[in-house]
Amino acid sequence: MDLAAVFTRRDPAPLAARLKADTGLDVPVLALAEAENWRERLDAVILCGGSATDLPVQTPEFAAKFNVVDSFDTHARIPEHFQNVDAAAKQGGHLALISAGWDPGMFSLNRLYANAILPEGRDYTFWGRGVSQGHSDAIRRLKGVKNAKQYTVPVDSALEAVRSGTNPELSTRDKHTRECFVVLEEGADAARIEQEIKTMPNYFADYNTTVHFLGEEEFLRDHGGMAHGGIVLRSGLTGGGHRHLIEYSLRLDSNPEFTGSVLAACARAVCRMFAAGERGCRTVFDVPPACFSPQSAEELRASLL
Amino acid sequence: MDLAAVFTRRDPAPLAARLKADTGLDVPVLALAEAENWRERLDAVILCGGSATDLPVQTPEFAAKFNVVDSFDTHARIPEHFQNVDAAAKQGGHLALISAGWDPGMFSLNRLYANAILPEGRDYTFWGRGVSQGHSDAIRRLKGVKNAKQYTVPVDSALEAVRSGTNPELSTRDKHTRECFVVLEEGADAARIEQEIKTMPNYFADYNTTVHFLGEEEFLRDHGGMAHGGIVLRSGLTGGGHRHLIEYSLRLDSNPEFTGSVLAACARAVCRMFAAGERGCRTVFDVPPACFSPQSAEELRASLL
Repeated sequence: MDLAAVFTRRDPAPLAARLKADTGLDVPVLALAEAENWRERLDAVILCGGSATDLPVQTPEFAAKFNVVDSFDTHARIPEHFQNVDAAAKQGGHLALISAGWDPGMFSLNRLYANAILPEGRDYTFWGRGVSQGHSDAIRRLKGVKNAKQYTVPVDSALEAVRSGTNPELSTRDKHTRECFVVLEEGADAARIEQEIKTMPNYFADYNTTVHFLGEEEFLRDHGGMAHGGIVLRSGLTGGGHRHLIEYSLRLDSNPEFTGSVLAACARAVCRMFAAGERGCRTVFDVPPACFSPQSAEELRASLL
Repeated sequence: MDLAAVFTRRDPAPLAARLKADTGLDVPVLALAEAENWRERLDAVILCGGSATDLPVQTPEFAAKFNVVDSFDTHARIPEHFQNVDAAAKQGGHLALISAGWDPGMFSLNRLYANAILPEGRDYTFWGRGVSQGHSDAIRRLKGVKNAKQYTVPVDSALEAVRSGTNPELSTRDKHTRECFVVLEEGADAARIEQEIKTMPNYFADYNTTVHFLGEEEFLRDHGGMAHGGIVLRSGLTGGGHRHLIEYSLRLDSNPEFTGSVLAACARAVCRMFAAGERGCRTVFDVPPACFSPQSAEELRASLL
């Protein structure tokens, strides 16, 4: 697998210099509009835009011209996105794989396998401890906030209740707490900002939220990372009344690097499935697992089965 | 999905009575030779024989006449078994899925996904705490042993070393201990038997093994279960030097019931893939995950992705 080119809406030159400095890769970095001229040279395109406004437009547009992979993660809008991308990919004779990454993605796969094996049971997904980009942004938009980072933290006692096999009913508040680290602008009203965070609908109002104010130096030193992770569990019964627990967990020092690694494996799968004649839109649910691996079917059976 | 019939090498009548008493199912229980007459009525056959001598013969034989699923688990002989079953299934125009269950099976899938995502890393598989049928049998074959059960136990400190991300080099002895519960026949020599267990090549000689002798009543009361489970981990690095840990674990109160549930989901997948025109032998590596689920692709995308 080779990285052929990077297409960007930013100024390409500084990005090319940074890519080379960070990775040693001497790869063309080009304006987004140039992608059109690379149609014969790219086996697959990985779309790295955001789910709110980029991907709903970009993925259908690119799927008409390229095989594509995206990480569209607005769960409620996946069916609509799927339809749009499917139509575009079929029209252009290409293959698209949407909503890849870890959730949706690896967590989804584990929910699916666990549900198929244990039809009588209950699913639980815990996120964290990790940085929520969306919640950090929401805090940064408040007047008087200079910088902020929000950590989603699973509640240990809720996790233990699930593991004990009691299949507890857990509310939003029971499962996660939210921890906020905030740098104030000079003269900002800390009490007002804390109140605004804790009562913010959708983002914080339904959670037990703690807010810490700190200096910028300390913030940059201690909260620069993008670690994340989480746990998917299914607890269920089989016919003879026996209980089983299936648990999948990720501990990621860098959310974007791990997500990128999943997308790279997905690009490999897309190329293989395209070569086998598949066209239209797919998700990880449709991909034979062997397609993600660089090893042959024979090697996989001999070494990993 | 309906259970159409059970075919057995034992006397069918008592088995039918027991099946009805245990489950309420009023299903034909028939001599194995009768399966031949059911070729038009069975969408898939789940083979429940042992890997040592049953499945190497039965799976190719049945794959020539039926769509089949087996749980062949002698890892080293999977390539050979695959070839035999593939040839038979292709000749008969059927589809076979071999080596399903949890290891090989769900653990294999998790090794494959984790390797595809984190090509630079290291795999670890821990089994237990749980009953090893093969090791229990090996003890029961010793002269003077009336009954025995062997538990495979993962070593906590080894597991913690893996989770810490140090990618330790772990020997067989480092990863698991073996705990044996033995009922002696009257007058048997406990010291001799303990020595024979601890020095038994392949089974116990490479492990730290403890042997407990106990009375039959206590044995039946405390060691009647078939619980098992284990953990598959992959610890690896991505390009920017960040570390990631992927962990999949199973805690099963009944190994045979859970394995049966995996095989039932595999039978569903085999029927779907057969209907789509697939013939020959497959493993879980080749099965699009959605095929295991009773839900439609649309439902899965809307509910589990």
